[in-house]
Amino acid sequence: MANDILQTLYARKSVRVFEDRPISQEYRKSIIKAAFEAPTAGNQQLYTILDITDQDVKVKLSELCDNQPFIATAPFVLVFIADCKRWLDSYQAAGCKPRKPGLGDILLATADSIIAAQNAVIAAESLGIGSCYIGDVIENCEQMRELLNLPDEVMPAAMLVFGWPTQQQQERKKPLRCEDTYIVFENSYQTLTPAQHREMFQIRAEKEQKPIFDYDSWIKAFWQRKYESDFSIEMNRSAGIYLKSFIENSKV
Amino acid sequence: MANDILQTLYARKSVRVFEDRPISQEYRKSIIKAAFEAPTAGNQQLYTILDITDQDVKVKLSELCDNQPFIATAPFVLVFIADCKRWLDSYQAAGCKPRKPGLGDILLATADSIIAAQNAVIAAESLGIGSCYIGDVIENCEQMRELLNLPDEVMPAAMLVFGWPTQQQQERKKPLRCEDTYIVFENSYQTLTPAQHREMFQIRAEKEQKPIFDYDSWIKAFWQRKYESDFSIEMNRSAGIYLKSFIENSKV
Repeated sequence: MANDILQTLYARKSVRVFEDRPISQEYRKSIIKAAFEAPTAGNQQLYTILDITDQDVKVKLSELCDNQPFIATAPFVLVFIADCKRWLDSYQAAGCKPRKPGLGDILLATADSIIAAQNAVIAAESLGIGSCYIGDVIENCEQMRELLNLPDEVMPAAMLVFGWPTQQQQERKKPLRCEDTYIVFENSYQTLTPAQHREMFQIRAEKEQKPIFDYDSWIKAFWQRKYESDFSIEMNRSAGIYLKSFIENSKV
Repeated sequence: MANDILQTLYARKSVRVFEDRPISQEYRKSIIKAAFEAPTAGNQQLYTILDITDQDVKVKLSELCDNQPFIATAPFVLVFIADCKRWLDSYQAAGCKPRKPGLGDILLATADSIIAAQNAVIAAESLGIGSCYIGDVIENCEQMRELLNLPDEVMPAAMLVFGWPTQQQQERKKPLRCEDTYIVFENSYQTLTPAQHREMFQIRAEKEQKPIFDYDSWIKAFWQRKYESDFSIEMNRSAGIYLKSFIENSKV
């Protein structure tokens, strides 16, 4: 099967180096409209979107998100906030006495936020604008709350940086995914054997034409870099603080 | 701005009534490929996708997800599982001793899962296939775990049902979103005043040409239906159970 939309979805890759060229209001509006028109639970739009236009705020975000200076160079930066406060306030404005939001509520708001964010990514892509998710937006909860004026009932779900890709970024090869036989299953979850784990990455490495692939040393390095790293530990700590009140309200 | 992709993103609406007509393997593969090619943190694909082909499982899912029989009529059903187990097993297969996954890890995996799911939605839309998110997939944790064979380190992030839309569904009006002035802010989070909450829904009701709109009675009914409802309470309870081990590992 092939059509322009599928081709765009298949080819899209993250862009981390941008041309020094602004993104016009017209483009910004088109991208935000795509986020708004994304599926949303019960038409509730359980998010707030922050458009970061202040360069000082961009710089602080780049520091709080694992010190990635390219974030501050992006001409367009959106933070998608999973929002369990706005509806609470809407209810209270009519004299309702709503229960406090729990973990189900914040998960539903997180889903809404990320669905909207991905529509923004695809909209940008259709306009030739590159984008990159910044998963590190969950880190440094206390400073992030202060910087963005976040109340307790909300949590950053996704940050996106957008810009015009440089030639080098356009030509960069997209990293290959693993074979679906290891990730898609019929009807029920399956646990892979140690041999299947090796196969999965061996096959990907072969497709990527890596000359030598040693599973054990590769995975040990990846494990240290991605999973036992400072940013990963910090992400877990901050997530606990963001979710604290929701956990208490859910009586876990 | 306008192009085919933007038009598709803007026009897409949920479809809950399907023609009695299968979705071929070729279409399924194209949709799953779009999910695979979605942005994913560190190229980790932190999800497992379950393709529900067993009619009995579809029926059980339709019951566990707030008793919505249309789920069982969908010719193509995907459950996106936020997966903190597969990488753990990959690490262990190389003799690493990884820490137990925490709340940051499961949030990152949830984001990955939902980004992939939204790509599947857009891919389907491009092929004329309708879709609907089932947020209720978070409910009835114990039975869902048993049905789908889910280990502790994973959580359903999204369920999607797909099918060919009936004529009536194609002609159904898409519900309007609120004005962006109440949802998009520059640089920092803003809390709306009670008057702004009223305005926000008043304006949407006018755009929808609702003859009479009484904020207080409308919001009270919505509050009871969406927020104080049994399914919402159940979603919060189940989310707590899914997240329990992650909470303990994050020492919240």
